[in-house]
Order: sequence, then C-alpha cells, then structure tokens
Amino acid sequence: MNYPAGTAYIDGAFVPMSEAKISVLDWGFLHSDATYDVVHVWKGRFFRLDSHIERFLRSADRLRLTLPVSPGELARILAECVARSGFQDAYVEMVLTRGASPTFSRDLRDARHQLICFAIPFGWILRPEQREAGLSIVLSDIRRIPPDSVDPTVKNYHWLDFVMGLYDAYDRGAQSAVLTDAGGNLAEGPGFNIFTVRQGRIATPDRGVLRGVTRQTAIALAAELGFPLEERLVAAAEALAADEVFVTSTAGGIMPVTRINAAAVGAGRMGPVTRALLEAYWARHDDPAWSTSVDEVLSGNLAG
Amino acid sequence: MNYPAGTAYIDGAFVPMSEAKISVLDWGFLHSDATYDVVHVWKGRFFRLDSHIERFLRSADRLRLTLPVSPGELARILAECVARSGFQDAYVEMVLTRGASPTFSRDLRDARHQLICFAIPFGWILRPEQREAGLSIVLSDIRRIPPDSVDPTVKNYHWLDFVMGLYDAYDRGAQSAVLTDAGGNLAEGPGFNIFTVRQGRIATPDRGVLRGVTRQTAIALAAELGFPLEERLVAAAEALAADEVFVTSTAGGIMPVTRINAAAVGAGRMGPVTRALLEAYWARHDDPAWSTSVDEVLSGNLAG
Repeated sequence: MNYPAGTAYIDGAFVPMSEAKISVLDWGFLHSDATYDVVHVWKGRFFRLDSHIERFLRSADRLRLTLPVSPGELARILAECVARSGFQDAYVEMVLTRGASPTFSRDLRDARHQLICFAIPFGWILRPEQREAGLSIVLSDIRRIPPDSVDPTVKNYHWLDFVMGLYDAYDRGAQSAVLTDAGGNLAEGPGFNIFTVRQGRIATPDRGVLRGVTRQTAIALAAELGFPLEERLVAAAEALAADEVFVTSTAGGIMPVTRINAAAVGAGRMGPVTRALLEAYWARHDDPAWSTSVDEVLSGNLAG
Repeated sequence: MNYPAGTAYIDGAFVPMSEAKISVLDWGFLHSDATYDVVHVWKGRFFRLDSHIERFLRSADRLRLTLPVSPGELARILAECVARSGFQDAYVEMVLTRGASPTFSRDLRDARHQLICFAIPFGWILRPEQREAGLSIVLSDIRRIPPDSVDPTVKNYHWLDFVMGLYDAYDRGAQSAVLTDAGGNLAEGPGFNIFTVRQGRIATPDRGVLRGVTRQTAIALAAELGFPLEERLVAAAEALAADEVFVTSTAGGIMPVTRINAAAVGAGRMGPVTRALLEAYWARHDDPAWSTSVDEVLSGNLAG
C-alpha cells in the first residue's frame, strides 16, 4: 500500500501516515463502532473548527463514547498534525472508536475508547477545474440507512448503502449517487448533502441526513445573500425538475450538479445561485468569525 | 492495548495479534466497506468451513470485492493461523476490505482489496457454565438496518444499531438485545439469529437477517430431530408468548434465552427443544460431513 503525505496521532503519539494503523480487533473496525468528523484547513486556517469539534463531541456522547482529551487538547492535536505535515491546505479527520476491552470481554462497557487524528492532503469530491462542468450523479433506488436504525446526525462510517450507490452510479456512467428514503424523498450522498434550486428558491432535506457543517454554512450564506431556503422533505422528482442542484461537503465545499440520471439539470452548467454561494463560501475562508489559523490553535488561543 | 493469543494473516504475512493492524486509511475502516465471516474450530476441527467460505465469496461478490487468493488458498491460510496459534478451539475470522487506491483516488474501482485472517481464542455469547441460566435479552425499539439499505445476507460490520441495542439492554439489566423491523417483527441480535418455540413448533425470521451458518445448522438439525420449523415473519409478540426462545451464533452455537424484557420465557429455564438441538449441535462437531481437521486443511485435502 502507498501512503499519502501527512501526520497522524494514534496511541498518544504523532506518526507518519504509513504508521497510522489500528488493531483489527478494535471495535471501530470490527463493528464500525466509532464516530468521526472532518474539518479542513485552507491557506493555513481551519474552517469552522469549533462547529466540527462540537458535533464530534455530541456524536460521541450519543454513542456513549468518551473523548480521552479535552476539546482544547483535541484542537491542539489536530493543529499539530497539520503543522508537522507542513500543509497549507489539508483534510483533517478526528475519529473516536470503541476500542477493545483489555480482558477481551464482549461487554461494550469494558472497552477503552481510542482517539485517532490525522491530516492528509485536501481531498475533493469535485476538483476546482471540474467545477464549471459540474458533477454527474444518479438518484439511486438504494435507501439511505433510516434514522430509526442509525442516527444520521451522528457522523458514522456505515457506508455500504453509499458504496452500492456509487457502483450504481459507475454502472450508469455517473460520478456519484444520492440515496433516497422509503418515501422517495432525497436523503444524501456519500459524504455530501444535497440542495435543489427552483425559481430562485432553495430546498434541502431536513430529516434522515447529517447536519453537515458545509450544509449549515450554505444555509447561513443563503440567508446572507437573500435567497429563500426551506429545510423540508424534498421529493426526488424535485431534483429532476430543478433549475440548479448543488451538493455540500467538507471535501470540496459547495459543488454544482449538472447531470442527474444522464439528463441535464436546468441549462446543464453551473447556475447563478450555486455560483453565488460557492464564491461566498470560499471568500469566507479567512473571516476570523469562521476560521482560525493553525498557529493560533497550536498556541492554545482557542475556547474549550 | 492488550492483545489475545493468536495469529493473523495480513499484508501476505503471518504475525502475532499484537501486530495485526490495518491502515486507518483503508476503506474497510473509514467506510466500513468490507465483508467478513467467522468459522470456529472445535477440538482441532473446523466446523462447516466450506459453508463459511462459500458465503464469504458470495458476500464479496455482492460488494464487488475480489478475493486475492483462491478458496483453497484461503482455507489453508485460515488453517495456518490456527496451527501457528496452537489452538484446539478457536474463533477464526476472514475479512476482505475495499483497501485503498495507490493514487488516493476516491473512485472505489481503483482500490486494492485487502484480505485479513486471524485466529483468536474461541469466543462465547453465552459460556457453557451459563447455559442452564440462559441469556437475558430485551426486544429493542431500534430497527435493524433494513434490507433495502444494506443487504443483511452480506455479512457486514454495520453494527451501530446493535451497539445502541446493547446499551439499551445494559440500561435495562439485560445481557443482549434483539432488534425488530419496521413492522414490529423480530430481526436479529448482535451476532446471532433468533428462534421461537411454541407448542413444539419452531419459527425463525425469514427476511432482514443473515443466513447464519449456525442458523442453517439448527434448521437442518430440527428436521433431523423431527421438530416442525417455519421460516417466516415472526412477530415480536411471539417471542414474549413463546415456550422457549433460543439464539444461534458461531460464537457459542445454540444458546437458550430465558428472559425477555425482564420476564421469564416459558418456565424460565432451558427448554427441551433447545436442549435437544444444543446437544445435537455439539455432537456433530466431529462428523466428517460437517467438520474438517485443521491438519487436513493444511495438507490441502480440501475441495476448492
């Protein structure tokens, strides 16, 4: 296996990515019993780090997992991973796993939870040079794992529905997939939330989805820019009839979808609402209200 | 972290369990994009190894994963893990993960699949000395991940519904949980299938569940012993009204459930149907039709 550049924090030590390995007996692997979050660094600044750490702590709490460090220490560990890697732009992941029991008990309450953090090069669902062309997706018949099985607001690694959706997309010549719920409403895609735009009005699913930080950012930016936006059930048919569709993810920000099920969305190119939000999103990356420099976090000048 | 005795096969080499580690970038961890199977060895003999390998291959195929070795080589690798560990009784797991792409592409088709095998000491959901007392379980309101999201016949690590069910059980003073489907029917528990017995008739859910090898074994033994058995939808209420309830798992075989939601099942102790099946199950562990010695597998005298 090849490994990307980057630095991980695991078993209490900082190591290169080639040495960032977990035991196959960790329940984070064997039962996908873990939660995670991903924050990005752009031009030396974390984007909305507090929001990501806050969600990570809430997810851990829901899964009865206990972070072995304080939120402030976590922030410094993440910053140290970035600083040691020398990255200006980075994709920074924090993971908390159930771990395992020192006595090999099957009782989950005996497990010692494990924190793993790592910084790797920034990853894109859609690269900047592909933005004008936009993403081609399919609406898959595979149902997103429903909220009464696994709480989607707890960021988790249960991706086999997405994986099957991705193969469905590949088989149909598309790049990615959006899954639906049992009622035929839009849910989410592998690592992203979806938005539709019709006659200047934006809509995004309000249930069965992760409250993505980029999703919340897009909602805030829409309000600032004066675009009406509703969080509600969104029928899959609305995506097919939309003027514009876009997706949001830490892995690339706000990204236009220009083809769904092989048909053009609206004019088949990035629309004006998507473009305005995308530009506002990137413009806010040095705003101190939403970003913090890696150096500042390292020096400990962060709440928590 | 402590590690149990045992031997793993990973990256093409045999190592002690303390060195059996996978990259945190393997999609088997990051997306739980993997399938697995567990076979046990009892008194030096694999039990139904062919059935486990056959299911593992079918699961891999459904997930578009390719085993990097032949089925016969896989069997020999598993046997070698057991032989190197010196175990007479063992829990032997085979895992196939999506791996990662050597170029860090997000396209799943670029990934190199990883085979991991390991033998550790035999694990029990219910130890033999606890059998007469039986298991205490709860019927949880958490829904098992439905088949239209993730195919339950593809053995997978998506256990957060089970994990939340287990905490539900702990909170209510029980040892384990059985999840239900959206219609209030029994599904399965963490690592086991469930059966009910009422007036000598056995029932077990026919959908939304793994076709466990121990489940299939119990069904075959029921036929041999002349117990009528139906695979069908089983309402949760039927478990509460049953004379006997038992569960089946590679991790312990056939095991009685004597309390559900804190109430006694039937007489509150192991019943005659469960006992007959349990005894028949263990009696068949040296039957050459269902078992193969580790030495025989090592010497290559196995089909495939």
